[in-house]
Amino acid sequence: MQSLWWQLFDILGTVAFALSGALVAVLRRMDIFGIFVLAAATAVGGGIVRDLILGRIPPAFFQNSMYFWLIIATMGVTIFFLRYMDTHRRHRLMHASINLYLFCDAIGLGSFTVTGTLLGCYMFPHYWVLCISLGLITAVGGGIIRDVLAGRIPATLIQDVYATASFIGAVVLYVLYIPLGQAADVASIICFAVTVGVRLLAIRYHWNLPRVKRRKRGQRF
Amino acid sequence: MQSLWWQLFDILGTVAFALSGALVAVLRRMDIFGIFVLAAATAVGGGIVRDLILGRIPPAFFQNSMYFWLIIATMGVTIFFLRYMDTHRRHRLMHASINLYLFCDAIGLGSFTVTGTLLGCYMFPHYWVLCISLGLITAVGGGIIRDVLAGRIPATLIQDVYATASFIGAVVLYVLYIPLGQAADVASIICFAVTVGVRLLAIRYHWNLPRVKRRKRGQRF
Amino acid sequence: MQSLWWQLFDILGTVAFALSGALVAVLRRMDIFGIFVLAAATAVGGGIVRDLILGRIPPAFFQNSMYFWLIIATMGVTIFFLRYMDTHRRHRLMHASINLYLFCDAIGLGSFTVTGTLLGCYMFPHYWVLCISLGLITAVGGGIIRDVLAGRIPATLIQDVYATASFIGAVVLYVLYIPLGQAADVASIICFAVTVGVRLLAIRYHWNLPRVKRRKRGQRF
Repeated sequence: MQSLWWQLFDILGTVAFALSGALVAVLRRMDIFGIFVLAAATAVGGGIVRDLILGRIPPAFFQNSMYFWLIIATMGVTIFFLRYMDTHRRHRLMHASINLYLFCDAIGLGSFTVTGTLLGCYMFPHYWVLCISLGLITAVGGGIIRDVLAGRIPATLIQDVYATASFIGAVVLYVLYIPLGQAADVASIICFAVTVGVRLLAIRYHWNLPRVKRRKRGQRF
Repeated sequence: MQSLWWQLFDILGTVAFALSGALVAVLRRMDIFGIFVLAAATAVGGGIVRDLILGRIPPAFFQNSMYFWLIIATMGVTIFFLRYMDTHRRHRLMHASINLYLFCDAIGLGSFTVTGTLLGCYMFPHYWVLCISLGLITAVGGGIIRDVLAGRIPATLIQDVYATASFIGAVVLYVLYIPLGQAADVASIICFAVTVGVRLLAIRYHWNLPRVKRRKRGQRF
Repeated sequence: MQSLWWQLFDILGTVAFALSGALVAVLRRMDIFGIFVLAAATAVGGGIVRDLILGRIPPAFFQNSMYFWLIIATMGVTIFFLRYMDTHRRHRLMHASINLYLFCDAIGLGSFTVTGTLLGCYMFPHYWVLCISLGLITAVGGGIIRDVLAGRIPATLIQDVYATASFIGAVVLYVLYIPLGQAADVASIICFAVTVGVRLLAIRYHWNLPRVKRRKRGQRF
């Protein structure tokens, strides 16, 4: 789990999540402290909640300064990019980088789903509600905290197949690893591929989960 | 505490709380993942915070899949009800079921107040601030998380005698059980009756707690 | 750390923070339960999160009823003040007391920064990310929870040199205490003086942290 590849995925995910936090903070006209808090909350908030639920004291983020520097670096690049590019070049760059961002974000979603679910499977293999919840919380908890701090309803609760990709991946990992007894590595890779795949397909084809529709126009609930 | 009756009350409360979360999510136009998160947060959010404060790892919700299935079932019935009833029949049914809902919700409030306060009394009998806070947090914490996720100010902070009913019940249980040395069963039943009673009377007579009033019309604070 | 002076600072900070929570609650037209919850969340919310991260079960607030009574007393005085003063006298009193309030708040910020950072240094001296985060969380976490419950974007993320004062103080304490090996008392006093000093200067000279500015008028981000 701590192999070089997972560490790379972890770093990609942290950077992508920190970037999304920083962008939301800038849109809300926060100052640089606010930008840091939102970047950090998005990137490591889910992992901190996971560690509190598992009683891992202190949470991993606080033990390893690498995450701190990743967040600071992401924040610095984001601010530089937004501040010093002229409008025209910025728009072109943003269009070029939006796909890169969505790709990194999907990588992060997959990576965090694997680490969260796997940690649950190691510590409490018989509690499937726990293991799958941990995958979800690690992957989407940070984004929910980001949106609450930014004063908006968490995006993942309203639209998009985002948390659902993580949920499907977590179920796949749990089922392969515990009841079917596959090796952790195999189950992890399949979970990662499923999560990232579902997420990228959802972006490509604009998938949305169903909502409860009103049956008639103008009808009040 | 784990007798058949308490389990029944626990189930009734979980269902009523999950229903209130699902309804708020539908009103906010969330997708089905959002509906599940709000239903779960309302039903078990308070209990998870209680368990984190007491260091119970992992929190009870994650150990017992019953709560998960109760939330899924409640959600399914709610969505079916809102989606497939025609408007006229739905309105009649809603009027018929609103009283049932308020009754179940009051049962849940009472039941969660008892389990939260009692758990505190077992583990840390000398910390009355802790025991009473745990009763309150277990009973109303989920509703507060629901409202924060739905982007509104928590209803229980603004109006209604809701948290207050739980607070009175928790104080009654603590005083009867620890300083007065009554049996846990007796104290629990009285706490439950007081909480549910105060809540139902508050609904019936539209009680509200006082606010700080402005003395003159048009006067700015 | 638990000497008489620190206890005095702790009390001043708790009162100032409870006051700010109560005022926000009144502005949002909350009832007296809401006023209590916001006062308590502001005064002890940061400390509770700090204790959960450090695994201190149960958190300090729940063990010592002093904080509870301080919050109740602050709340009572605030409500009395807002309710029974006539407008003219109230406005004069408010102008007279706003400086006192800002001063107490700065004292609280400094005091909570010291206790949070120092606790981290005692328990996990080698994790600097943890120690500095704990100082920040203890000092500004309560205010962030207050603003989330009040349905607004946390003020400290948007404007003002507030969290930054706490951050600078926490870095100073950590550097003096762990790498430079100074006595805890000396490091604490310097941290306290730096935090309070930066905060008071920021109030006096209306300091704000930079934001990401748009380069042209009317340019959309």
